[in-house]
Amino acid sequence: MAPTLEAPETTSQLVNDGLKRTITKTAPSLIPNGVHALPELDASRLTTTLTSHPRSVPLPDSDEVKAQRTCTDHMVTAQWTLSAGWAAPELKPYGPLSLMPTSSCLHYATECFEGMKLYRGFDGRLRLFRPSLNCRRMLVSSTRIALPSFPPAELEQLIIALCARDGPKWLPKERPGSFLYIRPTMIGNDPALGVQKPKEALLYIIVACFPNMSAGTGPKPGMKLLASQEDMVRAWPGGFGYAKVGANYGPSLLAQGEARAKGYDQILWLFGEDCEVTEAGASNFFVVWRTREGGLQLVTAPLGEKIILDGVTRRSVLELARERLSGRDEELEAVEVVERKFQMHELVEAVEEGRLVEAFAAGTAFFIAPIAAISFRGKDLKIPMAKGDTGAYAGAIKTWLMDIMYGRCQHEWGVVIEEEE
Amino acid sequence: MAPTLEAPETTSQLVNDGLKRTITKTAPSLIPNGVHALPELDASRLTTTLTSHPRSVPLPDSDEVKAQRTCTDHMVTAQWTLSAGWAAPELKPYGPLSLMPTSSCLHYATECFEGMKLYRGFDGRLRLFRPSLNCRRMLVSSTRIALPSFPPAELEQLIIALCARDGPKWLPKERPGSFLYIRPTMIGNDPALGVQKPKEALLYIIVACFPNMSAGTGPKPGMKLLASQEDMVRAWPGGFGYAKVGANYGPSLLAQGEARAKGYDQILWLFGEDCEVTEAGASNFFVVWRTREGGLQLVTAPLGEKIILDGVTRRSVLELARERLSGRDEELEAVEVVERKFQMHELVEAVEEGRLVEAFAAGTAFFIAPIAAISFRGKDLKIPMAKGDTGAYAGAIKTWLMDIMYGRCQHEWGVVIEEEE
Repeated sequence: MAPTLEAPETTSQLVNDGLKRTITKTAPSLIPNGVHALPELDASRLTTTLTSHPRSVPLPDSDEVKAQRTCTDHMVTAQWTLSAGWAAPELKPYGPLSLMPTSSCLHYATECFEGMKLYRGFDGRLRLFRPSLNCRRMLVSSTRIALPSFPPAELEQLIIALCARDGPKWLPKERPGSFLYIRPTMIGNDPALGVQKPKEALLYIIVACFPNMSAGTGPKPGMKLLASQEDMVRAWPGGFGYAKVGANYGPSLLAQGEARAKGYDQILWLFGEDCEVTEAGASNFFVVWRTREGGLQLVTAPLGEKIILDGVTRRSVLELARERLSGRDEELEAVEVVERKFQMHELVEAVEEGRLVEAFAAGTAFFIAPIAAISFRGKDLKIPMAKGDTGAYAGAIKTWLMDIMYGRCQHEWGVVIEEEE
Repeated sequence: MAPTLEAPETTSQLVNDGLKRTITKTAPSLIPNGVHALPELDASRLTTTLTSHPRSVPLPDSDEVKAQRTCTDHMVTAQWTLSAGWAAPELKPYGPLSLMPTSSCLHYATECFEGMKLYRGFDGRLRLFRPSLNCRRMLVSSTRIALPSFPPAELEQLIIALCARDGPKWLPKERPGSFLYIRPTMIGNDPALGVQKPKEALLYIIVACFPNMSAGTGPKPGMKLLASQEDMVRAWPGGFGYAKVGANYGPSLLAQGEARAKGYDQILWLFGEDCEVTEAGASNFFVVWRTREGGLQLVTAPLGEKIILDGVTRRSVLELARERLSGRDEELEAVEVVERKFQMHELVEAVEEGRLVEAFAAGTAFFIAPIAAISFRGKDLKIPMAKGDTGAYAGAIKTWLMDIMYGRCQHEWGVVIEEEE
């Protein structure tokens, strides 16, 4: 693949709720001695081959959607090799990948991904939610798992191109308030079996039909969590819990399967002898409690030890809470927003002393999911949900976020996608 | 795939160096209420489709072999689904796998594998080395990573069938003392994107041409190890370091790549504030030292906390050392064999006080690999190699193992494969 060094610097523009957002593409870099660097991932080189077998769009919450197997008509792929850099990305019909049985990703978990959603707004427009954060985190993940780097803005442009192509059909304007799930993925497809940094990798982006999972899976509202046992630790300092790599997920499925068999929705992951509270399932975990001194706090685990994911929803919850939960809303008492280590015994004491106000999980897949119960070492903790099906704070935050995602309010976090005909 | 419940109980036999080794296949199980269980993995149902494009066998240590990309003419595959159990295994031409982009293994690292070798003996026969241990460990790994179970003896029969088919051509009798590398693999190929235990999985076995890596990669004999930093921890109690799952490998490649860039062969993985010595690269790690009391010990980390791999080579080294290093050999002073936690400072002190006799790594890929140097927090430890290119104990153990693998002595660990014409 020849470097496209002659290509002029190009600029593409996104209309972002009336704001012009400009993404400037960096010109191919020159190494100081004048030798040209290998080609970077470059969205402007995207080639398009449309499917000749378009499929029908399943109904929301149909069995097909619940099966989480159906993707839209197209996908984007881009191949990287150590010797030639990034090839031109391709938008092409969705279909199976051909991988050698020796491929690095099938043996050594050289893989990482992102989870995002494409929203059909109540104003009829398609939106992404803070996509630049996902693209930057994808680079953090690929770096941690020995996969190649790339300019995050180029990944964002490729995501936008796929959404612009398949969004109009797969998120029809007649269904405002619906979403698709976007899964950017990178895998090591080096067919050499040696345990080593892959010399070949494939970036791909797919868009799946996904059910709404924020309501929990049981007949009653609210998720039921089972606290992890000492012999099941999700992540540790010096490990990779902060990165969205496959190696964080497969090892958690055994405990998750046992929890589901016992009637729980997710594992509440604890860490260490002190039972630090870290994450809930694959979401971040928040509590609202009243301190013994009488103050109200929104508490979540900190990022410092790199054992939890720097969630986009987590970050958005914290930012909105700091901005909007300062007492200006008459119905919602002001909260102090606290990122700190906290332990299971603090949560137990808050429940037992009637100081726990609510708890919720926050992530892309489960969105803002109120928690109804936590089981910890044989103790069943009932978590209040002041509004019946949610706590008041989780409910307000969820509404604020949905208003941005579905275009009920104009906000810089909601990035409008110009649709292709 | 219909269950083969009518199939009679069959017995297949392996000639094992004069011993008849009988593997009895369990009849399909009946669940107490009379409902038939789903079909188990069943080697007797193996179907065979031979390649119409046989490839030529590369020369040992050729560039093609060093690239670790070339597999033999055939592979074995077997598909499992939650609803139908194990389909009949297939021996078929080696080639790419077709996987949906949503496949579980590409996102959540639902994958595990084994590493074994097929040896061409100096007596002209093909042998495996303790294959039943690998097959049992594969079940431990698949269970840990939420993949299906199977009878290990059936996996062993499938491995034997593939070796019997491709061994005669790919390990020609004119090249005694050579080997191929066998890679049984299981991947979750469930195309549902939800984070859950896969409902579909593929078992496959491939056989690759592999270079001899026990001599280290540098110009001088002996491996050079770089001790891991505090921010790179391979495994943790409550994690999965004991299982041969992809999630243990990908996350280690970043540190390994940095080590190689600095001129080291592998990482010496330390654990905890005390700098416990655990593994070397993807091998187990052994030291021989003299205690301050004057006794000679062979020391390796214990399996108790489940942070290190229960290596087949590790186990064989310990068993041979207990049996043969008790002073009966005039050249080798008796050693006490010790499995215990030990710390980096003990190793440093042994080097500084002249008590360190030797160190070596032990595993299938690197076999018995003498260690020449260890770098720890800026301190360069020179490790003695009494025989020039190896320590005396590593040298003796390596010879004993090779004698079994290559049929220079008859031993129950060497399982002879009857070759197909």
